[in-house]
Amino acid sequence: MTRMDAFRNRVGGLAYGGDYNPEQWDPSVWREDVRLMREAGVNTVSLGVFAWASLEPEPGKFEFGWLDEVMDLLHDNGIHVNLATPTAAPPVWLTHLHPEVFPIMADGQPFGFGNRLHYDPSSPIYRDYAAKITTKLAERYSFHPALAMWHISNEYGPTAHNEASSVNFRRWLRRKYGDLDTLNEAWTTRFWGQIYTDWDQIEVPNIPRTWMNPSRRLDFKRFTSDALLECYIAERDIVRSFRDDIPVMTNFMRFYRNADYWKWAPEEDAVALDIYPNPADADSHVSAAFNYDLFRSLKGGRPWMLMEQAASAVSQWKLNIVKEPGRMRLGSLQALSRAADSVMFFQWRASRGGQERFHSAMLPHSGPDSRTFREIIDLGREMKLLAPVAGTTSRSEIAVLFDWDGWWGLEETFGIPRSDFSYTDTVMRHYTPLWERHYPVDVVPAGSSLDGYKVLVVPNAYLIDDAGAERIIEFARDGGTVIMSFFSGVVDDRNRVRPDGYPGAFRRLIGAKIDEYWPARPHEVFAVEFADGRRATSTWWRDDLHLETGTALATYADGLLEGRAAVVENRFGAGRVVYLATLLEQSAFDSVVLDAVAAAGVRPLLQDVPSHVECSVRGDAAHEYLFLLNHSGELNASVPLEAEGTDLLTGTTVSGTVELAPLGAAVIQRPRA
Amino acid sequence: MTRMDAFRNRVGGLAYGGDYNPEQWDPSVWREDVRLMREAGVNTVSLGVFAWASLEPEPGKFEFGWLDEVMDLLHDNGIHVNLATPTAAPPVWLTHLHPEVFPIMADGQPFGFGNRLHYDPSSPIYRDYAAKITTKLAERYSFHPALAMWHISNEYGPTAHNEASSVNFRRWLRRKYGDLDTLNEAWTTRFWGQIYTDWDQIEVPNIPRTWMNPSRRLDFKRFTSDALLECYIAERDIVRSFRDDIPVMTNFMRFYRNADYWKWAPEEDAVALDIYPNPADADSHVSAAFNYDLFRSLKGGRPWMLMEQAASAVSQWKLNIVKEPGRMRLGSLQALSRAADSVMFFQWRASRGGQERFHSAMLPHSGPDSRTFREIIDLGREMKLLAPVAGTTSRSEIAVLFDWDGWWGLEETFGIPRSDFSYTDTVMRHYTPLWERHYPVDVVPAGSSLDGYKVLVVPNAYLIDDAGAERIIEFARDGGTVIMSFFSGVVDDRNRVRPDGYPGAFRRLIGAKIDEYWPARPHEVFAVEFADGRRATSTWWRDDLHLETGTALATYADGLLEGRAAVVENRFGAGRVVYLATLLEQSAFDSVVLDAVAAAGVRPLLQDVPSHVECSVRGDAAHEYLFLLNHSGELNASVPLEAEGTDLLTGTTVSGTVELAPLGAAVIQRPRA
Amino acid sequence: MTRMDAFRNRVGGLAYGGDYNPEQWDPSVWREDVRLMREAGVNTVSLGVFAWASLEPEPGKFEFGWLDEVMDLLHDNGIHVNLATPTAAPPVWLTHLHPEVFPIMADGQPFGFGNRLHYDPSSPIYRDYAAKITTKLAERYSFHPALAMWHISNEYGPTAHNEASSVNFRRWLRRKYGDLDTLNEAWTTRFWGQIYTDWDQIEVPNIPRTWMNPSRRLDFKRFTSDALLECYIAERDIVRSFRDDIPVMTNFMRFYRNADYWKWAPEEDAVALDIYPNPADADSHVSAAFNYDLFRSLKGGRPWMLMEQAASAVSQWKLNIVKEPGRMRLGSLQALSRAADSVMFFQWRASRGGQERFHSAMLPHSGPDSRTFREIIDLGREMKLLAPVAGTTSRSEIAVLFDWDGWWGLEETFGIPRSDFSYTDTVMRHYTPLWERHYPVDVVPAGSSLDGYKVLVVPNAYLIDDAGAERIIEFARDGGTVIMSFFSGVVDDRNRVRPDGYPGAFRRLIGAKIDEYWPARPHEVFAVEFADGRRATSTWWRDDLHLETGTALATYADGLLEGRAAVVENRFGAGRVVYLATLLEQSAFDSVVLDAVAAAGVRPLLQDVPSHVECSVRGDAAHEYLFLLNHSGELNASVPLEAEGTDLLTGTTVSGTVELAPLGAAVIQRPRA
Repeated sequence: MTRMDAFRNRVGGLAYGGDYNPEQWDPSVWREDVRLMREAGVNTVSLGVFAWASLEPEPGKFEFGWLDEVMDLLHDNGIHVNLATPTAAPPVWLTHLHPEVFPIMADGQPFGFGNRLHYDPSSPIYRDYAAKITTKLAERYSFHPALAMWHISNEYGPTAHNEASSVNFRRWLRRKYGDLDTLNEAWTTRFWGQIYTDWDQIEVPNIPRTWMNPSRRLDFKRFTSDALLECYIAERDIVRSFRDDIPVMTNFMRFYRNADYWKWAPEEDAVALDIYPNPADADSHVSAAFNYDLFRSLKGGRPWMLMEQAASAVSQWKLNIVKEPGRMRLGSLQALSRAADSVMFFQWRASRGGQERFHSAMLPHSGPDSRTFREIIDLGREMKLLAPVAGTTSRSEIAVLFDWDGWWGLEETFGIPRSDFSYTDTVMRHYTPLWERHYPVDVVPAGSSLDGYKVLVVPNAYLIDDAGAERIIEFARDGGTVIMSFFSGVVDDRNRVRPDGYPGAFRRLIGAKIDEYWPARPHEVFAVEFADGRRATSTWWRDDLHLETGTALATYADGLLEGRAAVVENRFGAGRVVYLATLLEQSAFDSVVLDAVAAAGVRPLLQDVPSHVECSVRGDAAHEYLFLLNHSGELNASVPLEAEGTDLLTGTTVSGTVELAPLGAAVIQRPRA
Repeated sequence: MTRMDAFRNRVGGLAYGGDYNPEQWDPSVWREDVRLMREAGVNTVSLGVFAWASLEPEPGKFEFGWLDEVMDLLHDNGIHVNLATPTAAPPVWLTHLHPEVFPIMADGQPFGFGNRLHYDPSSPIYRDYAAKITTKLAERYSFHPALAMWHISNEYGPTAHNEASSVNFRRWLRRKYGDLDTLNEAWTTRFWGQIYTDWDQIEVPNIPRTWMNPSRRLDFKRFTSDALLECYIAERDIVRSFRDDIPVMTNFMRFYRNADYWKWAPEEDAVALDIYPNPADADSHVSAAFNYDLFRSLKGGRPWMLMEQAASAVSQWKLNIVKEPGRMRLGSLQALSRAADSVMFFQWRASRGGQERFHSAMLPHSGPDSRTFREIIDLGREMKLLAPVAGTTSRSEIAVLFDWDGWWGLEETFGIPRSDFSYTDTVMRHYTPLWERHYPVDVVPAGSSLDGYKVLVVPNAYLIDDAGAERIIEFARDGGTVIMSFFSGVVDDRNRVRPDGYPGAFRRLIGAKIDEYWPARPHEVFAVEFADGRRATSTWWRDDLHLETGTALATYADGLLEGRAAVVENRFGAGRVVYLATLLEQSAFDSVVLDAVAAAGVRPLLQDVPSHVECSVRGDAAHEYLFLLNHSGELNASVPLEAEGTDLLTGTTVSGTVELAPLGAAVIQRPRA
Repeated sequence: MTRMDAFRNRVGGLAYGGDYNPEQWDPSVWREDVRLMREAGVNTVSLGVFAWASLEPEPGKFEFGWLDEVMDLLHDNGIHVNLATPTAAPPVWLTHLHPEVFPIMADGQPFGFGNRLHYDPSSPIYRDYAAKITTKLAERYSFHPALAMWHISNEYGPTAHNEASSVNFRRWLRRKYGDLDTLNEAWTTRFWGQIYTDWDQIEVPNIPRTWMNPSRRLDFKRFTSDALLECYIAERDIVRSFRDDIPVMTNFMRFYRNADYWKWAPEEDAVALDIYPNPADADSHVSAAFNYDLFRSLKGGRPWMLMEQAASAVSQWKLNIVKEPGRMRLGSLQALSRAADSVMFFQWRASRGGQERFHSAMLPHSGPDSRTFREIIDLGREMKLLAPVAGTTSRSEIAVLFDWDGWWGLEETFGIPRSDFSYTDTVMRHYTPLWERHYPVDVVPAGSSLDGYKVLVVPNAYLIDDAGAERIIEFARDGGTVIMSFFSGVVDDRNRVRPDGYPGAFRRLIGAKIDEYWPARPHEVFAVEFADGRRATSTWWRDDLHLETGTALATYADGLLEGRAAVVENRFGAGRVVYLATLLEQSAFDSVVLDAVAAAGVRPLLQDVPSHVECSVRGDAAHEYLFLLNHSGELNASVPLEAEGTDLLTGTTVSGTVELAPLGAAVIQRPRA
């Protein structure tokens, strides 16, 4: 039994609750809190996330009395504690004593006091103080009966340009490259005469002036992720040294570019996600779905934790739209549908002051007699009904490549044919038709095993290392279908253009050589004709591509590249590659992707279901749980079922057709066929 | 007789003139200046505003010879002097010796030399040098016969982030809060663990990183205003210590967010305004009118000084449009109509070089034979004709709340449901229908007496202290009409959300509880239906509001809040409250405001006068002066009069209907009824 | 024989090649490089531009072995070397030892390591190291047989705000002004009390806060150009001290605001241009033409060097469009048509890594079997055919004023009636109708001799010194035609408004006094009527102008200036002045310019040739070479010839009409009539 299995047993299935910050309130409030938590069905809280200043009001002077009381109170009321190390919020005395702990920002100025995450992760001073408070907490609470999980720090993220960062960066580079010749070669420092002759000459990129060395920039991104990870591991190892059977995690963020979560996930018992889909964005639930698939995939399909979401509006944006009635519940079910084992919120009780005084909470400013709290109670009831799904997961036949190195290469390293690539946008463009047609999707990093998949989708994989490229090639050779879009396989893991013509890594795979990349002018539109006579348009990009073993699925019907291939098919070994050399209009793009998936023999979960209804399955050896979620706030939907089952939300048997009201949902439990 | 009464007697009614900077010119020019001043009817000049470097060329070495000569020359020609302390422009030797005097800007960089206002107002070094030059000036000129007024420094404004600012900020906070517990509570520092344990840990917000503690930010705004005010008071007390019967003032600015003029005004003999309405902005005369009303109100209705305006174009904007012929005269009359007792300009003679070489002047680059100088002469003649209005004022039955705390709360403290509130825009939105219909309006701060008013207008008063809220509640209870718009009464004076449901301060006043604030998506439009069946639209904001004692004047006719109140009426004590819970389209908004005013029994100055004609009255026990100002450059206007009078500009008797040409004006003197 | 004549003889006419950076490649690549260079017809390379770190890997330790080998290899293959001093790229050890060498940028932060041009040109440390490496290079290679030219540093440009800059700025100011009184007068420091009393008080403008003293700012621009020029001269003098018969130059940039190339050109044997016309910009070839005319004019009509261009796309922009097939060749011929004596590229071989890894090269990533390299070979062949044009030039009857002081005055000194003047846009607006109608144009600085010209075009010459103004006045008095546009002659060379009414320098010349400048509101359009009844519109600007000796060619037909002159004609001495007091719509503007040119008796090169065909002539006493260049990628063109000749590109005789395919070209050699 893993630590997470034990946790699931302990909370009786799914965790429900949120960040609890009792240090913001007088003790008189705590009892009301706990009473209302019980009313709402809360079984888990994240405690003490920003409580460092309350726990260690002076250097080395600790005050745990209040926390003892809260831990006891929670335990007495059957609420489990995900206890945080408070190291995301160093107290003011720490930075006042040691201002060098403040991260120097990209503009050369220190971050200053008054927010959170105001530390250079490479600072030995910060790390030392963080270790001390972590040790004290672990000493005191490792065996407290309320302790159910460790929440290490919070939303690791700062990028720092301090002297200590440079020292750590040099250490990191020495480990990676061994000697300066290798580093100079990796960074192509012979270009523009940037050759390093002493390790001490190397500094973190102090100011992001235009046109930084792209390999140095890339390594700085990697280093920043690793420096933060070192902080996490140090604290994790401390709490684990006291007791080994409590799960440990930290909370990640949605589409977060600063930390390579593929490297982080193995260091955690479960990955946990903070996500704030913007209600003002009509597609935010689709990108949420992708992130949920990513989080399920980060630990190879194991259930994950939804650690923070908002009960209604947030307060950090320029415009903070509320979640309309029913939207919060639907989003919560959506996370569960893609293998979350918890629904948790930031935060339990709305703050009266401070930066996030208008961030919604489970218990809002308007108190228990409010729309929000009524919805919280209703959801708490449903969480219990859904307990059977806990621990179950899913696996699909389609994998989408999502890789931080590729992300950084495309967006952070400058000097490519066009600078407006958005990695997440291109990933979502590839993911959306699959989501709309109800195909389950897994997410994979470069270089991972592709066993069991029939289709691999590779969106604009500009930067990929040799092993990652080789794995894709093998996958195709062994019979897989690869759907790849332009500007893939261009540079190696050091951001150097691969030799022997574009796309260096994949020339044989796609069966074509690209003479030159032709980004399109603004508003330029090209006519494309498919082999079967269908016409479409494309924009934004064209490869000047010369077929070798490949054949054209579509060609340009106008322009200087008229007659040249726009979409390439290449039979490769036992497999098949479909390569998109231009940005097709949406419907044509979707057709290419969906045709390739169908040709690979992959079938969707359900057919004839409108795209505003999301369908997902999770399950175990005994059961599967089909989630049907109507994201439309206006339209009803009818979903034809293949087999009858029990809707866990209503307890009724359903068969034939399920009717869903706007924002309606069903969770149908069926025995495994 | 007040000091200002004496000043008025001395200048024979209205002051006319401008900033005079003889130190920019050779003495040979001075005599021509004075000759042309006399030709133009100039009777007052502001002298020496930036002359520090000319008066104290080296530390402690003073040169007053040139100023003696100028003072004598002016006096000999009957021109009165508003003598400036030159402390807005510290000499280069001062900042060269003491670079720490430069204000550190929000980006962490010092302001540097070469502009004005390059000082940290908290700097003891700056204050010391400023006191010395002020003392020297006062010693020498307090009894010079030309001296008619003291002009302390200029356009107080710098925000500084220096170490000296932090020292002064801490002193200010100690005075305000007494102890750290109170400060920590006020700032809600328990949120995000920002608890201060030593005063020395507190610094001015050094860099406006996103998401600063909103209470700290608010106090920093208050502190900055107060630190500047300390500078003013120090210099004022010096000049007053030499002679007590000369009025003292400094010049304020239009809609200036950095200084709380309600706190400043009591420290001055008269408030003085620098205003540069942008001729490119079609509504600039309406916001000018509001500022004039504000300035009249700042000292409880006493006449104020128009201290700086431009004769034609300015030079500080990206596009500097000239004032078309007649526009400068009309704007000058507008200031007089709202109780200005002076018309003055920056500056007398256009500079040849320097930053403002293209700022227009009374005497422009093109010399006396120019459109501008001819208009200056004409206006000088009219100023004499208008001498009877000097010293008179007005009082209205409508008050509009305008409050710096409320302004800062709404615009400077982040983290509210939407960040694009403009306090001045919302104030102007409420003021404009009243201006267009010729209602006189006074302006009041939070917490002031409301005796004598029938209507109080409260635009988006997000932040208001307990006393301010209580005064409004009393006003309604005692029979007043309150027109209030959404997002009012939300937080206390420490920027903490008031407890017990929105809007904490005014829930009983408006007779409704707001469950949640629903800012609208961009382009979202709502249908609203009034009780009488009229329909309108609204945008931008909705309260999710639940009526308690209030009733709906209008409800939403569509959307998720369909049927919920959009405009609330609440009978409260002997009074009436009209609360706007959404942003109505302009015409509907205006109707709600004007209907409420009419229902309160307030009548406009004139009826059936088109909105491009501005009507205002000032007067005393014996006479009233009705100003009619046609702001249209194209349309004529006929204004029906209720009683005959004498047009001071023409000396003719007018009755029946007054005809105004485009940009035309009349000032009709009538005996008090 | 000049040094450049010798160079031309040596390369056999035109130079062809590019930047060669062998230090980026293993020696094994060098032999392939040279083989392909020979295949492409390359005869010249720029060598070692960024090789400092490779030549001096440690302070004072030099490694020339690799360069010896490359120099020998090139020489053995008949390729001439333009050897660079590598001082644009200081090695990391230099800035690590001396971080004060980094230029402090306008934001107060040092530039940091990792790009190029990371030096303060005023730094004595930088200058000292630069002198040492230059001396070493000159010692070793001055008599190497491959050496054909010295390429001093690269693209001089950095603006620095260091302490060393301030020291040098003060030295520069002392030389210029002699004493502080003169400086204070020049800078109008009596405005705002900025009077300097000690030289040490003067610093470079440390931060470009809004509203800097405009004269100080202007001098800082001049100083920056001069400080860079000092660097150039120092290195030039070193190499010349070793050997006097080798030409020396540095490479300039297109429309580069930071260096006054009129001051630089006399210090060079030839001016050299780096130019990257943006293929995404439909008019980039017209601004290229102007720059080519400027470069020919910089040294009084002597042929110049095209030193860098791209073979296809660049990589520094947000969107980097490729040059379509044929576009690179056409652009190369265009440079030759306007008296370039070389076609060179950055760079020979595309880099694998570094910032410019996607900058196209003569030898692209796709290798010799590529569109680009085939075009390079073809052009190499044509360069040989065009050898006869080498050394020839042209002279025209029209001069356009283009002046760095005027540029800085208009764009860098703030506080003028509108801030959106673009000096290059206005110059191009005046140049374009002449270019479209095939008029040759020379470019002149303020104050230069105007002998031999019939027409002088003066675009928005806001700032001009007395001598420059006087030269224009003399030119008109002596019979020339001056076409001048508004806001000219306003300030003197110290940025002070000239006295006695606008436009101070040219009031008598244009025969009108301007009372006031009236910039237009956005979207404001004025009707203008010409004397012959034609109507047009104008926007953006109007002078409020009063005719004195001038007469109206066109008047406003509406608005407040109705009936006032919009275009003025003034007979002045033996000449004629046409003054545009407003911004006419394009066709009317062009007519005014072209009518004035025609009236001055100037004829175009060819008539009845469409504007997409560019026509230019260069020649010598014996021959003229008519270049016909079809810039359209879609249209054919027929060009009627006046006399027969030989097309050097085809070797055939042409007469009657020349047919040009899209992007087609002809270079017709004809004997001088």
